[in-house]
Amino acid sequence: MTAVAATVEAVVAAGGPHIPPRLAALEERLAALTTGYGDVLARYGGETIAAGGKRLRPLLVFVVAGPDAPAARVLRAAAAVELVHSATLVHDDVLDRASLRRGQPTVVASAGRRVAAATGDLLFSRAFAELADNEHADEVRVLSAASSALAEGELLQRADAWDAGVTVDRYLRRCERKTASLFEAACRLGALEGGVGDPDGLGAFGRAVGLAFQLLDDVLDVSGPAARTGKARGTDLLDGTVTLPLIVARDRDPELARFDLRAIGGPREAETVCERIAATGALEESRRRALRLVEEAKGSLPGLPDAQRRALELVADGVVERYS
Amino acid sequence: MTAVAATVEAVVAAGGPHIPPRLAALEERLAALTTGYGDVLARYGGETIAAGGKRLRPLLVFVVAGPDAPAARVLRAAAAVELVHSATLVHDDVLDRASLRRGQPTVVASAGRRVAAATGDLLFSRAFAELADNEHADEVRVLSAASSALAEGELLQRADAWDAGVTVDRYLRRCERKTASLFEAACRLGALEGGVGDPDGLGAFGRAVGLAFQLLDDVLDVSGPAARTGKARGTDLLDGTVTLPLIVARDRDPELARFDLRAIGGPREAETVCERIAATGALEESRRRALRLVEEAKGSLPGLPDAQRRALELVADGVVERYS
Repeated sequence: MTAVAATVEAVVAAGGPHIPPRLAALEERLAALTTGYGDVLARYGGETIAAGGKRLRPLLVFVVAGPDAPAARVLRAAAAVELVHSATLVHDDVLDRASLRRGQPTVVASAGRRVAAATGDLLFSRAFAELADNEHADEVRVLSAASSALAEGELLQRADAWDAGVTVDRYLRRCERKTASLFEAACRLGALEGGVGDPDGLGAFGRAVGLAFQLLDDVLDVSGPAARTGKARGTDLLDGTVTLPLIVARDRDPELARFDLRAIGGPREAETVCERIAATGALEESRRRALRLVEEAKGSLPGLPDAQRRALELVADGVVERYS
Repeated sequence: MTAVAATVEAVVAAGGPHIPPRLAALEERLAALTTGYGDVLARYGGETIAAGGKRLRPLLVFVVAGPDAPAARVLRAAAAVELVHSATLVHDDVLDRASLRRGQPTVVASAGRRVAAATGDLLFSRAFAELADNEHADEVRVLSAASSALAEGELLQRADAWDAGVTVDRYLRRCERKTASLFEAACRLGALEGGVGDPDGLGAFGRAVGLAFQLLDDVLDVSGPAARTGKARGTDLLDGTVTLPLIVARDRDPELARFDLRAIGGPREAETVCERIAATGALEESRRRALRLVEEAKGSLPGLPDAQRRALELVADGVVERYS
């Protein structure tokens, strides 16, 4: 069982029997959404959707909205968030010239840059079309704010590339933009539909969980093992992305502090640098920071029915357990 | 005076004194919209906006909405349409690796693919944020339908590239998606805000004018002169884009019908092929087709106050006159 499946099972046990049918309906809805714009987009949009992913953001929408929120409306919000997420992945793969994602060939690898760019654009515009049907302007605002933040996050990552002197604050700001913003949007959308719990408070919860998610993802890039993460250790180092483990490790190991990332010649050397980072205890420190974020997020959850609060805590724990 | 400035002047004379202040407010609004997402996006988003363009789509929004529509709401609709248009230009330049647009260096040329991709994404998401403030779900639907059509149009163009056997119907379908859809959206948004005139009828008017606009743009690519169009003659031929003049010319000139586009070695040869297309009378035929579209569009305009109908006819004429 995957960590997410285990989380869903725990959430259901905690009082969320409405979750599995909503996740199933989401798959159906997503699969139907990319048709009607020509065969090519139907194919690659459909494949992108079908390749799956953890559906963590829709899960947050469903859990935050709660069992009493109208199913069709919550479904649209969940689909919209997942569509924006999928759109950014397809576009990122174009920019990174990535050949594989989730073990499948990327759209750019299968069909070229133009098809991939158009597929991302379609998924993106379908997200807003989907949300429009909820006739709730705040939801469109939430999603476009998140999309704008994602664009900013992508640029922050590039602006700071190869700069090992990036501060923790700057690193966290980048993670907020490129990852936490969409987790926040998921919780806000759920709150707007559920009508239970303060959207700002739930948004803050989503942001913290999203931040923890990114921190732990960055830890995994250094810790490996590759067999579990599906990519080589040190991939971030090789493309110049400076993450928390390296920032912390540079404070503790003077040789790492002097080290120029551009000197890493290939995967082998990247793995050696990963070992060196790990030896400083920076991975534990980064993990602790992520866990603290999740604990704080759980502690500051706004007033919610007990079953719903418990379910949200389980989702937050699930994000962490995936990496434990 | 540019053709668009002349059109605006004529529209004002026909009873549109509200137009110039709205166009001025649009520039202010667009300039303010890209700040708040980091310096890089503010700079390149701002430069993209400032590089201008004809603002034809916002003009359609303003004219269709009429003088009595609430200024702030119409402004948001106009800004949203222009933002989507600008976003697609920035992204197209990435895909085409274009170095100049409107005589200025493109974002991709100045700042690279990542910055350009993110700039386009920002403009795109700002469009939906802008429209959300109108709290009118139909408007979000209209804009996302147009955005999806643009993605489809881009792919149709690529799918048909180098295929000189493309039919007129298929060519028109591509133009509807890649150009007419956003003109249609501009008119629909204006109609939704103005509340005067049937949105479907006005949308059809916009679609026809947009289609004529694209046809005439394709004529200009063959006819030149380069000094007027700002690009070399036969640019479409060189990147394999088969347009109406070539489709018509192939019916009339057996040698052109046998000709393989891939055999064109460079701008010189492209110019020769342009001459050959022009010699068949295909340019006049294509122009006539565009003019007929505009006349039909004007003839089928739904019920509107006289001044507004006259203003719309002038905008349609302006699109044509730009190319006469």
